[in-house]
Amino acid sequence: MVARDIDELPKNAANYTALTPMWFLERAAQVHPTRASLIHGSRRYTWQQTYHRCRRFASALNNRSIGLGNTVAVIAPNIPALYEAHFGIPMAGAVLNPVNIRLNASTIAFLLGHSSASAVIVDQEFFTLAEEALKIWSDKTKGFKPPLLVVIGDENCDPKQLRYAKGKGAIEYEDFLESGDPGYAWKPPEDEWQSIALGYTSGTTASPKGVVLHHRGAYLMSLSGAVIWGMNEGAVYLWTLPMFHCNGWCYTWTLAALCGTNICLRQVAAKAVYEAIAKYKVTHFCAAPVVLNTIVNAPPEDTILPLPHVVHVNTAGAAPPPSVLAAMSQRGFRVTHTYGLSETYGPSTVCAWKPEWESLPPETQARLNARQGVRYIGLEGLEVVNTTTMQPVPADGKTIGEIVMRGNVVMKGYLKNPKANEETFANGWFHSGDLAVKHPDGYIEIKDRSKDIIISGAENISSVEIENVMYTHPAILEASVVARPDEKWGESPCAFVTLKPGVDASNEQRLVEDIMKFCRAKMPAYWVPKSVVFGPLPKTATGKIQKHLLRAKAKEMGPVKISKL
Amino acid sequence: MVARDIDELPKNAANYTALTPMWFLERAAQVHPTRASLIHGSRRYTWQQTYHRCRRFASALNNRSIGLGNTVAVIAPNIPALYEAHFGIPMAGAVLNPVNIRLNASTIAFLLGHSSASAVIVDQEFFTLAEEALKIWSDKTKGFKPPLLVVIGDENCDPKQLRYAKGKGAIEYEDFLESGDPGYAWKPPEDEWQSIALGYTSGTTASPKGVVLHHRGAYLMSLSGAVIWGMNEGAVYLWTLPMFHCNGWCYTWTLAALCGTNICLRQVAAKAVYEAIAKYKVTHFCAAPVVLNTIVNAPPEDTILPLPHVVHVNTAGAAPPPSVLAAMSQRGFRVTHTYGLSETYGPSTVCAWKPEWESLPPETQARLNARQGVRYIGLEGLEVVNTTTMQPVPADGKTIGEIVMRGNVVMKGYLKNPKANEETFANGWFHSGDLAVKHPDGYIEIKDRSKDIIISGAENISSVEIENVMYTHPAILEASVVARPDEKWGESPCAFVTLKPGVDASNEQRLVEDIMKFCRAKMPAYWVPKSVVFGPLPKTATGKIQKHLLRAKAKEMGPVKISKL
Repeated sequence: MVARDIDELPKNAANYTALTPMWFLERAAQVHPTRASLIHGSRRYTWQQTYHRCRRFASALNNRSIGLGNTVAVIAPNIPALYEAHFGIPMAGAVLNPVNIRLNASTIAFLLGHSSASAVIVDQEFFTLAEEALKIWSDKTKGFKPPLLVVIGDENCDPKQLRYAKGKGAIEYEDFLESGDPGYAWKPPEDEWQSIALGYTSGTTASPKGVVLHHRGAYLMSLSGAVIWGMNEGAVYLWTLPMFHCNGWCYTWTLAALCGTNICLRQVAAKAVYEAIAKYKVTHFCAAPVVLNTIVNAPPEDTILPLPHVVHVNTAGAAPPPSVLAAMSQRGFRVTHTYGLSETYGPSTVCAWKPEWESLPPETQARLNARQGVRYIGLEGLEVVNTTTMQPVPADGKTIGEIVMRGNVVMKGYLKNPKANEETFANGWFHSGDLAVKHPDGYIEIKDRSKDIIISGAENISSVEIENVMYTHPAILEASVVARPDEKWGESPCAFVTLKPGVDASNEQRLVEDIMKFCRAKMPAYWVPKSVVFGPLPKTATGKIQKHLLRAKAKEMGPVKISKL
Repeated sequence: MVARDIDELPKNAANYTALTPMWFLERAAQVHPTRASLIHGSRRYTWQQTYHRCRRFASALNNRSIGLGNTVAVIAPNIPALYEAHFGIPMAGAVLNPVNIRLNASTIAFLLGHSSASAVIVDQEFFTLAEEALKIWSDKTKGFKPPLLVVIGDENCDPKQLRYAKGKGAIEYEDFLESGDPGYAWKPPEDEWQSIALGYTSGTTASPKGVVLHHRGAYLMSLSGAVIWGMNEGAVYLWTLPMFHCNGWCYTWTLAALCGTNICLRQVAAKAVYEAIAKYKVTHFCAAPVVLNTIVNAPPEDTILPLPHVVHVNTAGAAPPPSVLAAMSQRGFRVTHTYGLSETYGPSTVCAWKPEWESLPPETQARLNARQGVRYIGLEGLEVVNTTTMQPVPADGKTIGEIVMRGNVVMKGYLKNPKANEETFANGWFHSGDLAVKHPDGYIEIKDRSKDIIISGAENISSVEIENVMYTHPAILEASVVARPDEKWGESPCAFVTLKPGVDASNEQRLVEDIMKFCRAKMPAYWVPKSVVFGPLPKTATGKIQKHLLRAKAKEMGPVKISKL
């Protein structure tokens, strides 16, 4: 018996190479050299041009001694340079850190310092923000070594910004590329575990945490995202989701794998989305639920309906209210609902649509589709567990537990944060901090973030479920429910509400009573918000409602008095 | 500067696991437990059932001490058991060796001995073949230890075969499964480089070589194959391509990744193909060019035309004649042309269709689509090189070189064959043995197998190009051209031809003259076959024409005499 012969064949140069999404770009340039890779206003690049530009990018970095082990920050909206950074920086061996453009200067200063940024590449509109952040960083740092500073010009912006930046010594991005070699011989990393990207969590309570991703995971997630979404060769993708948000859920790299076309958008508005669909035959886009809300509630003159062709929408970020899902579907968008975190390279579950749902009433369809669903192909393990016992909760649709994940599309860890890594990877699972139930069909449904759950008289109340009901009220555009201190119950639900345009808000008290009556008819009494506050909701760059700010506001309002009951 | 912090996050149980297609099956059972996984005549399994059956399979093997390091041979046509073997055997930690059912007993005896098969699982129709092979193996082997013998019953076959096999001590497959645990806790391999499958090359000149594949490559190829072919979730796949042929180009595992449905076919005939398309709404199938030929030339009563829906066909194996491609397209099949070898997990290039080809005449389209194309997503390197210098040939569509590949979907190597491994992996590339040119658009086109090229008067003649012309002759169904010894030129082309049904072949000499005249009008004089022989062509199990047999026949005919010229 020569049992193990079968496993005794070693790796060699012909049969093993590191997985990296850089291969996708090289292939796209070979297979479809003249196809449009990227369109931004009047600018249009082909895959061959993008490949050349990204190699110049990598070469220009290497020429300035930036490569393996270095981090490069990019502060930009969805413009071509940020897309190119997804290839140019890793090809140089360095790590891309795309920075959320809505952050303030002191937070950006923290990020740059924490990641020891070797270069800062910034869109002209955000140059003064970067300048301010660099100043804070430098003031706080002994022996501060200023990073390479590159400014990206955009013909759609004020030329004064660009002149100002160049006057301050920043190299213009195009000149920077020009200094690199378009024939630069990039190599895959020696180890596919090498870091490819760094993204900071919003850090609502403590300092932002740096999520580190690797080449292997980025490669696997790129293909997974295509297969899960039925996104085929030549897809036309509209960038509504910021690329700085978890590398655009890795669709930056997927588009190269599919030799598709990227349509850039500096700013997301319903009108611009509809126009891009009509003009470029957009097949796919991703959007947070609040963006869907904007699309659904756009004034008729901003829309192009019926849609000229099927448009696939991937939505995640928070659970979209079923009413919004139903409205999207009525307009002809095919909405895929996913769920994930920066720590999981973007979406890691999908509410996989079942043919047998086709014959159900629209409301039932929307309710089923609003669940977070089942695991992605690239994610090997997903459970909802009792965090004390680490045992899975029963699939009864009722018992709440924490969502935990494991597999190849879970981050390497948080940068320089051993304590957070120990907690987050406890017991061999990644702990999402999201609370969910598992339905009898195996689909999971988020009930809340651990910190968003409202505990009233020792009962857990899901803020999400209250919001889902409130979204069906005819006057409500957006609703967000948080805990407010309550003298009798400890906490009670407090709702922050934005009204639809045209709603008569002159008699606020009557409106509040009407909303409460609506809620009482549709939920247990102890769920009904005891307070309703009107006004715009604070949001993150990706359109997530910032509940921590609302919670702070509710706290400021003081506890609900016993007398009020 | 803390440069390398960014790479210092280790692997852990939450963020790293071996890639293996076994994950796909677990996921399919979770996501679509009740969807049909496999249909075979009146038998129909769901994904949950398939998952249970495969776990029983693995458990039943382990119970008999078959696992890590062992090889299990399966001798069967496209029936459910062979599909299940693609999961059950690797889940047990063992290596699957699917055996070509058209091989003779002595070759099978060689395979079983060479791979030290621990078990032989054989379809009832092939039991006596297996019995004969086991006898030969045992006779040749001192201290022979008989492998576990399992017979697969099929209600569509003669019950006597099954009774006979059981009388000879074989366990019936269903009883074997029954002995395993449906809750068997399978684990991914510790190392994704672990072997998953073994397949033997046809071994036309020497002993067959055992191609060893690993879990990582099988996983990557499964996703690659879906993305390249635009094969989405829920695809319905018809098994015309034998699963024993390079694991059905890894589509065995792809179907689990897509939670699709496998339609089994014991025997391929045009009528059965059309019926399955209509009955099961087949969306995809793979077929060798000769199978396409059968489909195109099927009598009208066997067809269902126009097709009720688009059917995607992936064809490879040999270059399909452009005329056959054009005919398929006219019938509404969307043909994707790929090329690969067992050593590359199946297809590794694809003739990626370009939208700009849509407006070209059908013949031009077919000519462009008959090329082998560009590299697969999963294959990281593909070149056509001068094998002396290892330099790429110019992309001129003329200079012939050898196709070489490298990447993660290149085999581990040949089992117990260091000499062949050294040759095949020389200079850090896998050497395909196929000769091709590279066109200015970067697409490669095979001109011949190294051994199929005809060298006439020191000129290289591509047998494939002659065949492509001959296929356009109205009387010719199939044509295969090989070298025949030639007194004056060393070698000259000799054509073996099968005529279309209904062609009047009574005056053979006139037909030969007509064909030669046809050829003279369309090719250089020295390409025109000097000999034309009518009759059926010998083929492999996968429908490849066995040129080595034709070459032997041409040699037997003796050299073409000078006087004949």
